[in-house]
Formats: sequence, C-alpha cells, structure tokens
Amino acid sequence: MKELAYFDGAFLPLDTYAVRLENRGYQFGDGVFETLRVYDGKCFALKEHLERYRRSMRELSIPITDTDAEMVGVFGELIDKTEIREGIIYFQLTRGTSPRSYLPPKINLPHLDVIIRDIPIHMDWQENGIRAALVDDIRWLRCDIASLNLLGSVLAAEEARKKNAKKALFFRKEKNTVTEGEDANFFIVKDEVLWTHPANEMILNGVTRTIVKEKLAPSLGVTVVEKTLTPDFVKGAEEAFFTNTADEIVPITMIDRDPIGSGVPGELTKKFLAAYKKYVKEELAKPIE
Amino acid sequence: MKELAYFDGAFLPLDTYAVRLENRGYQFGDGVFETLRVYDGKCFALKEHLERYRRSMRELSIPITDTDAEMVGVFGELIDKTEIREGIIYFQLTRGTSPRSYLPPKINLPHLDVIIRDIPIHMDWQENGIRAALVDDIRWLRCDIASLNLLGSVLAAEEARKKNAKKALFFRKEKNTVTEGEDANFFIVKDEVLWTHPANEMILNGVTRTIVKEKLAPSLGVTVVEKTLTPDFVKGAEEAFFTNTADEIVPITMIDRDPIGSGVPGELTKKFLAAYKKYVKEELAKPIE
Repeated sequence: MKELAYFDGAFLPLDTYAVRLENRGYQFGDGVFETLRVYDGKCFALKEHLERYRRSMRELSIPITDTDAEMVGVFGELIDKTEIREGIIYFQLTRGTSPRSYLPPKINLPHLDVIIRDIPIHMDWQENGIRAALVDDIRWLRCDIASLNLLGSVLAAEEARKKNAKKALFFRKEKNTVTEGEDANFFIVKDEVLWTHPANEMILNGVTRTIVKEKLAPSLGVTVVEKTLTPDFVKGAEEAFFTNTADEIVPITMIDRDPIGSGVPGELTKKFLAAYKKYVKEELAKPIE
Repeated sequence: MKELAYFDGAFLPLDTYAVRLENRGYQFGDGVFETLRVYDGKCFALKEHLERYRRSMRELSIPITDTDAEMVGVFGELIDKTEIREGIIYFQLTRGTSPRSYLPPKINLPHLDVIIRDIPIHMDWQENGIRAALVDDIRWLRCDIASLNLLGSVLAAEEARKKNAKKALFFRKEKNTVTEGEDANFFIVKDEVLWTHPANEMILNGVTRTIVKEKLAPSLGVTVVEKTLTPDFVKGAEEAFFTNTADEIVPITMIDRDPIGSGVPGELTKKFLAAYKKYVKEELAKPIE
C-alpha cells in the first residue's frame, strides 16, 4: 500500500511519533477532519470539502492558520510524491497543544496533519449492495460538525459488524427518526421521490449528499424531500442507499433482516450511481479555477 | 511547575512527540481517562479510580495490558522522580494505533500514558464558592464512560467562562434535568436533604460523589436522594456544590444570575468539605493493603 503523511511542514511515514501528549486532539478529540477522494491523481470536490472544513472550524472557534492555497499545495505534493492515482486524502486539524484543561487557552496554534493512501472504491458494494443494521444514535447533538469526537460511530460500527452488516444506520430514538449511516448520509426511494433527513444538527451534511440533492436529482428529474424518517417508513422503502466521499453511492439491499424492495440494488439507485460517476469525470475535466 | 510524563515504558518531558498520527485516541477520541489527586506524596482513592478505569475500558471493550500493580508502580515512580507532594496524576488509555477505520482491528495494543503535575487545590473556590452557568447538555448518551470524547465539555467550559462562571452546569433539555458540571458532579441541599442526579448514562459517577453519598452523608446523618432535578427545583435550593477529584467539594453561590440560598457557601456544604478533608487524611494514614 502506498501512503504518506504531512505534519509540521514535513512529509513523513505514517508510523512516526508526530503528536504531543497534550495535543487537544489526543486528550479531548478537540479538532475537525475531512476526507477527499483522489481520482486519476486529482482531488474531487476540493472547494466543497474546504468549505465544510472551514465551517467546522468556525463552529468550534478554531482559527485559520493554513490557507486554502497552502492546503491544496500539500495535497498536490502528497499525490506527486506517492504517485497515487486513486485514493483518499484524510486531513485533521486540532486546537493544538496546551496543558490539559477543558477551557482552551486564548492563544493556541492549531495543528494540521494530512494522510494520503491508495484506498480503492468498494466496487462489490456498489454492484451488489450491502446490508445495514439499525443502531441507536447516542451521539452528541452537533453531528453537523465534522469533529474528532467519533466514539459513537466506532461503537456503532462494532455493533453493526456483529450483525453481519457493512454499515450502521443510526436511529435517534427520542426523535423517532433514522438519521444517517455511521460514516455516510442515507437516502430512500418511495413513490418515485427521494427522501433524506434534513441537514440539521443530527447529521453531517455530506458533500456527496449535496451533489445528489442539488445536481443529480434535478438532472434525473427526481424530487428530493428532506424530512425525519420513521423506521417503519424506511423499511417500507422501494430502494435505499448510502452516500459518502470514499464509497460514492452504495445501494442498501437489507436493513437488519428486512429486504429493501426486492432485496437487490434499486433501478433509480443505479441511475444515481451512474450519474455520480459521470459528474465526477466532468468536474475533473474542467480547468482549475 | 513540576511535571513529568510516562509513555511506552519511558519517563519523558510532556512536550515530547510521543503519539502516532493514527493513534485511535488522536483520530476518534477512542480511549478512556482518569484523574487522581496526590496528597502528601500519596495517591488518594487509588482503588476506586482503578475500578472506574477498568469499567470504562470494559464498556468500550478495550483489553487490559497493564495490570493494576504495574499502574501503581508507574504512579509511584512519577511521584518519586518529581518529588511532587500535592498534585494531579492524569492517565489515559487509547485503543492503540491502526490504519484509520471506525471499526477497530480485532487485535490492537492499547496505549497508556500518564502525566503528573503539581496542581494545587483551588482554596479560594472552597472558601468563597463559585458561580456556575447553566449550559445545554448536548453530550452523547454514554457520559457514564470516562471517554476522550470531551468536546461537549470543552464547548460548555467556553460558554460558562463567557458568562463569568467558573464551571458549566449541564441542563439536559429533553429530560428537563440538571445533570452535572463540566468536570464535576452536582449536589443541592433542600429541606436538609442532599439531592443529586442518579448515576445513569447521563453522568460520570464520580469517586468524590460516591464518597459524599456513601461515607460522609451517613456519618453526618444526612439523607441522599438520587433523582432528576428540574432547573426550578435547583434554583430554589438552600445550598449547592460540585464534587470532583481535583477540586474536592466546591460551594456554588450563584447559578447564572440567581444566588443560591443567601449567596454564600452553605453551612451543610462546609460540613461536607471539612468531613471530606478529614476522610482523605484518615484514608491516607491507613496502611496500604
């Protein structure tokens, strides 16, 4: 596997000791992250990911030290040095290092690190679909921030795998709504309409989710409705799929022991997946602004 | 300030680069922590803290690699090497280092680190009391685990300081209950009875809380009732205080703009604080089992 990290201005192997004991990311999960997919040696939806990254930082009042241009420069160097054509760039920014105290110091230098890896797309998931498992959503009430407080998703992933499901699908009991997957947004098809949870504090508003909603659905002539989704409504869906940067669009063929539709990837889901791949190609072919 | 860290079998300065980029503590907050107070060069309530530490590990399915005896040995060495008489030992254990994935690998070596510092007790807080600020409790629903997902407390601490309060006091809106402080349990005195939130998934069951409830209250002849506490009930209290390892017992004289009782540390609160200090002395004088 090809991989490389960037930290403190240097390019390093991933197993380097590069973080201090009192980095606030390490002691509190006090930081934010983003994941980018690299296609044919280029970053897809760079602008959208940087925008969401800046939003997460604003919500946590973490100041900007690396400009967008500097970040893009680092991503380019990581791609060049590793010669990765298809892969994932992961980056995270913490509130820096200071003596342990919940209250952050007034002045603290944020800490950026970036990792690139040649992680392929799960083609089998896209072709055959996956099973999802409903898991209680016990995460905090700011899931709209891409923060490093991710233990809720870690525990959900473990619970889902025990049920032989590839991804957990969160159910927020007190709101009686299915929110999103452990690392993906969630859509269903019912009566030829696409349904998904509103982009509020209960979900991370995915870049892929926005492309599906704002670019692909209009071009395919499909209406999108954003509303809370009861488990009964979800289990009666004709089709269902997950969206995220790493996996693109993944059909869901079963939730727990219930097949969705006829238990195979849905026709409209397949159309969205094909449209997404076409959209990615077209975007990457455009000259960089 | 005297301070020293222990990591990977070595004693190091705190600003050492000692953590890998893909330590799960750094990327997910996937780990647990404990805080011990050192009095006169000895750890107080060691057994109770190690018990809670093991419980947190069990809840997250993190296996034991360092035995209690080994941990106690490290604490002793940190005290000896720094000659700290009054201070805090902080330790955290993460699920170790592995390529980033929410699902933990089947076999992963947990990572322990320990920090000692000569942090004194806030005597002025104990003598004069502090103001607390009610802050919405948006944390996850496993606050009973002493995990490293602490962003909810970080944001609450910031919000409370903006309101000139020394500590945030969490209010869980959907349950209409005051739960605990940002880093402390919460008690009120009303009609000569001590009231506190039940030790369920909404609060971290503090070692100091347990001592107050099970040792001091019976010896002072005070009844303790564990129930959910509405903000109105709390603001009508005669006295209120926080308990935790670092600060012991801290009188609360104001919540937001409302004085508690007559706005000075309560008589029963002062009795509990004196009884706590006496209890600590007696326990530390006992021979080690």
